[in-house]
Amino acid sequence: MSVVVVGSVAYDGLETPHGSVDHILGGACTYIALSASYFTKAKVVAVVGDDFAKEDEQLLAGRGIDLQGLERVPGKCFYWKGVYSADMNDRTTLQTDLNVFADFHPKLPESYRSSPYLILGNIQPALQRSVREQMNGLRLSGGDTMNYWIKDYRAELLSTIHDWDFLLINDSEARMLSGEHNLKHAAAKIMDMGPRTLVIKRGEYGAVLFHRSGHFMVPGYLLEQVFDPTGAGDCFAGGFIGYLAEKGYDLKQGHVNAKELSRAVIYGSVLGSFCCEKFGPDRFRTLTRAEIDGRFNEFKACTEF
Amino acid sequence: MSVVVVGSVAYDGLETPHGSVDHILGGACTYIALSASYFTKAKVVAVVGDDFAKEDEQLLAGRGIDLQGLERVPGKCFYWKGVYSADMNDRTTLQTDLNVFADFHPKLPESYRSSPYLILGNIQPALQRSVREQMNGLRLSGGDTMNYWIKDYRAELLSTIHDWDFLLINDSEARMLSGEHNLKHAAAKIMDMGPRTLVIKRGEYGAVLFHRSGHFMVPGYLLEQVFDPTGAGDCFAGGFIGYLAEKGYDLKQGHVNAKELSRAVIYGSVLGSFCCEKFGPDRFRTLTRAEIDGRFNEFKACTEF
Repeated sequence: MSVVVVGSVAYDGLETPHGSVDHILGGACTYIALSASYFTKAKVVAVVGDDFAKEDEQLLAGRGIDLQGLERVPGKCFYWKGVYSADMNDRTTLQTDLNVFADFHPKLPESYRSSPYLILGNIQPALQRSVREQMNGLRLSGGDTMNYWIKDYRAELLSTIHDWDFLLINDSEARMLSGEHNLKHAAAKIMDMGPRTLVIKRGEYGAVLFHRSGHFMVPGYLLEQVFDPTGAGDCFAGGFIGYLAEKGYDLKQGHVNAKELSRAVIYGSVLGSFCCEKFGPDRFRTLTRAEIDGRFNEFKACTEF
Repeated sequence: MSVVVVGSVAYDGLETPHGSVDHILGGACTYIALSASYFTKAKVVAVVGDDFAKEDEQLLAGRGIDLQGLERVPGKCFYWKGVYSADMNDRTTLQTDLNVFADFHPKLPESYRSSPYLILGNIQPALQRSVREQMNGLRLSGGDTMNYWIKDYRAELLSTIHDWDFLLINDSEARMLSGEHNLKHAAAKIMDMGPRTLVIKRGEYGAVLFHRSGHFMVPGYLLEQVFDPTGAGDCFAGGFIGYLAEKGYDLKQGHVNAKELSRAVIYGSVLGSFCCEKFGPDRFRTLTRAEIDGRFNEFKACTEF
């Protein structure tokens, strides 16, 4: 069943220990939609400028992604430039030009409104909220946020995530949002804020899923080489929601299927790991569902005892 | 089957965010032997001074640990004092007094020499080597080391670990020893140095086991509270070798039983996690095998998908 994906479609400048690239396709919406597209129909809601390249549109369209909600306005796409540390664990922003993204007010095409799944990439909480209000019949909705909104837009963020079924967040953000250092305590506090399913991402160390009946832990996939981690967190989100949408996962039926949520976290980890293998979204030019399922099975083999 | 445990038996001064304690029993040999004692007969080789308290001896003896190899000499026990950071992830040494440990030359009682299992705690590589040479009929031997020996005693260390079946090491030490940042590449280089079974510990993030037929990953157990991490790495080692000794694991039969090695890593993680629940080795005053097996099963439930 289809999933609506909201967020940025952007151009990135990336400096990594393995080389540099500029004006490569990026943005949370891009990575989430590409990843989710291996499982289900992804419908994007985003804004691009008139510099949005035909070949980038084709990458998305080629994955069967619905672009009806991709608004085109005069001006330039959101642009972000950053440089990674030698070990790729830190990055510094060199440039951020909001461009057309500054006036982004997500409008859902009529055909999107009854989609059962919604995932909100990291944008201003009020905008995330406005999108959710335009939808009806949601089975599962949630999204991502970041330190900036947690720190400076706390009230707005809390009122937004109050209605979410799931929240995906990294460990430092979870600590900031909850005021708790211990992950179990942080998770309990965050789940009291609304989202009863919480995924805390720990970068190269994996992720922990918390839900009403317990928790599930997955270690990070050991890559031979982390080429470029840009977008890995968003690909995690895309794999997570994509798998649940493919399965027709339905929280409204009143119960948590913990095993399916765990498998969704594994698919998230799988997509995040593939994303790191090439610059930007380049890995998605060749990635197949068979490769994805292969790595899912590899996770099983490397964690079973 | 019995395991010989070599290393320090010491007194520690610990300053943590949860309080301070001084002259509490510590040392690698202590923690390894206590942990291994839940699985098999542990036989310690260590030196203590005349300040070694009767009650501490009783803690070890009460766990059925063989103290025949515990040498007693005039002077004071090895003393270490350290302070932990607020998040417990870092610690700073405040004081190190080698005392009787300065002249430690491990001598094995005759009754130890035919033990099939040997684990060498973090001491000078040449001493580790001399112990191994006093044994015969070993099924499995290996141990731990640290940055100091890797940096300043590299040749001695390499010649020592060349003969080991397994090496337990943390991630920063693995990177220092191999000169590789990527863990898979680091592991491949280290396994070429001798130990064909390698456990890379990653603190709160768990551990990765590498062996001849692949690798196994375990996330870190999520504690409600990390009270005092002192000794957790050594307890990991004790659980690891203890389980393999209990099972009669035999590398000499020429094959790796990957599942048993994985389970040994889980038992290592379990013992390491219990160790963090109280000051020093205090958790071992009440810990039972049933609690250990319970947490082993909890690991299964939290990682299966």
